[in-house]
Amino acid sequence: MVEKQTQRVTMHTVAHRAGVSQTTVSLVINKNAENIPEETRNRVWQAVKELGFRPSAAARRMRTHRSNFIGFITDQIATTPHAGKIVKGAQDVGWENGKIILLINTDSNPEMEKEAIEVMMEQEVEGIIYASMFNHAVTPPEMLREVPTVLLDCFTQDHSFSAVIPDEIGGGYTATEALLKRGHRRVAFANHNTETGGSVGRLIGYKRALADYGIPFDESLVCYEVGEANGGYRCSQKLFTRSDRPTAIFCFNDRMAMGVFDGLRKLNLSIPSDVAVMGFDNQELIAPHLHPGLSTVELPHYEMGRQAVMYLLNQIGKTFKEIEPQEIIVPCPLVIRDSI
Amino acid sequence: MVEKQTQRVTMHTVAHRAGVSQTTVSLVINKNAENIPEETRNRVWQAVKELGFRPSAAARRMRTHRSNFIGFITDQIATTPHAGKIVKGAQDVGWENGKIILLINTDSNPEMEKEAIEVMMEQEVEGIIYASMFNHAVTPPEMLREVPTVLLDCFTQDHSFSAVIPDEIGGGYTATEALLKRGHRRVAFANHNTETGGSVGRLIGYKRALADYGIPFDESLVCYEVGEANGGYRCSQKLFTRSDRPTAIFCFNDRMAMGVFDGLRKLNLSIPSDVAVMGFDNQELIAPHLHPGLSTVELPHYEMGRQAVMYLLNQIGKTFKEIEPQEIIVPCPLVIRDSI
Repeated sequence: MVEKQTQRVTMHTVAHRAGVSQTTVSLVINKNAENIPEETRNRVWQAVKELGFRPSAAARRMRTHRSNFIGFITDQIATTPHAGKIVKGAQDVGWENGKIILLINTDSNPEMEKEAIEVMMEQEVEGIIYASMFNHAVTPPEMLREVPTVLLDCFTQDHSFSAVIPDEIGGGYTATEALLKRGHRRVAFANHNTETGGSVGRLIGYKRALADYGIPFDESLVCYEVGEANGGYRCSQKLFTRSDRPTAIFCFNDRMAMGVFDGLRKLNLSIPSDVAVMGFDNQELIAPHLHPGLSTVELPHYEMGRQAVMYLLNQIGKTFKEIEPQEIIVPCPLVIRDSI
Repeated sequence: MVEKQTQRVTMHTVAHRAGVSQTTVSLVINKNAENIPEETRNRVWQAVKELGFRPSAAARRMRTHRSNFIGFITDQIATTPHAGKIVKGAQDVGWENGKIILLINTDSNPEMEKEAIEVMMEQEVEGIIYASMFNHAVTPPEMLREVPTVLLDCFTQDHSFSAVIPDEIGGGYTATEALLKRGHRRVAFANHNTETGGSVGRLIGYKRALADYGIPFDESLVCYEVGEANGGYRCSQKLFTRSDRPTAIFCFNDRMAMGVFDGLRKLNLSIPSDVAVMGFDNQELIAPHLHPGLSTVELPHYEMGRQAVMYLLNQIGKTFKEIEPQEIIVPCPLVIRDSI
């Protein structure tokens, strides 16, 4: 039976109960006790159990300088549905390797970012993940150069930090190719009207797929609007009221596709018989629930979280300078439903 | 200028550089230095700056037994879009009060829950939030009774743990009343077919609002289906093909409402002129993007996260036994768009 704790149980209390020295207790509980008689070891473990003693992680840290913490700094966990998957992927790999994630959301506030990193340094994190909730160029605080750091779903223009990013070009190619393979030759692209890793990369992938299938790029089939449902709606009204309307459309994300669905319905065009529609993201709240279910390309958030921690695990103990910056590009798989 | 660190800078290094004792350094950096001449203090701070010394959180913990950690155990952060807001609410209050959130996702795996709590105890967390991603009865691990703990969006049948939960009854009342106030007298309810805090509470609220407006409860207007888009779709086909069809419907959640939208469209019924539709959740990815925008009741996830930490801040340092279990019920506000 564990006795009720009325005050803090320390190694000293355990030593007293077992009738041994604190050093002996320390050696036993840290599994460093080959030279201690089994009978003594058993007495120590018995006392540990009776008193409900729990070795302090702080004390272990003081000894080993291994905190087992990985810092996770993120810009906007609250507003994106992807955040949970990225965090989960990071945690799952961390957990398998005895690491705990210290998560701090900073709302992209530079002052708070600085403080968050200070707090993490004080906690002696063994590495830091600096995560954004959409793929774009960032300028991370210089302080991050003090520990192994990896950017997640973002990158620096000078490539001086390692980064885990989705294969935007490959994803754009995959989405477009899925439409071309079904015989479409006039494939529109409803793109996001702000320059991000996604909007730039997916356009490159779209163009490459067209080229590989021998179809000339037609600028007039690319529509730029905000990457939301209403942006998709507006694109549909521009593209599908033309006499030479396209037969298929690739959308920057599932939300734009949701707007395209509404727009096509308004124009009395059926999906996929009149127009095939591809999304991007595989947003679970949207894609499977549209009618018909939306074919799309998945942003591999869980896998990106995993990869970030796997990368850090190999860098722990190195100084930032010893690390050769590296880009880890994670593939975006095709998810086929009924809209193409 | 901060010098490049080639090895760990300790209080000892600082003392050496400043030409004072380690005790003096400790007193100065812990702001306990009234009796130390200003000139000496300045010398210490100068050395701290030059060496880039950072006091170790582990060392402070050893001294003060204040970890400043709050543990956050959650069942399924990856699969719900609410998770981010709950975590953000908890973190924001924690941060204002110098607390760091240790987040561990357990996938509701009891073995992992146990390990997660062990890890948190080793880290000397000052309190624990045990969070579920939807409001239902749980049986939390007994070990949680060792520290101040609050359940978040879940509860125990015996009310032996404090809990922060949304006002499901009030929310159901608010949603139904919004429809009644617009003159509807035949108001259907598409409820989730599994017993949860939400399905039970919202039905009570629905009945109370009807009673307050003098309308007899009609069992045949309540439809039970899975709380997803397809469940809502099925309810719409049952309820709105009747000759005495209702003129309004309150849906258990926004996803069911999304299915009702599709179903009504199929029946050529307009929203809100033929049928008014209310949701529940205020799911940001869905509610504002439907056509017309969905009127709904908000599940106050951010506020629940905040309340959980605010509650714990008042309990820190108490034993579990000293705490009188308490239920903190957070109101669900009405969000009016165009569907009613």
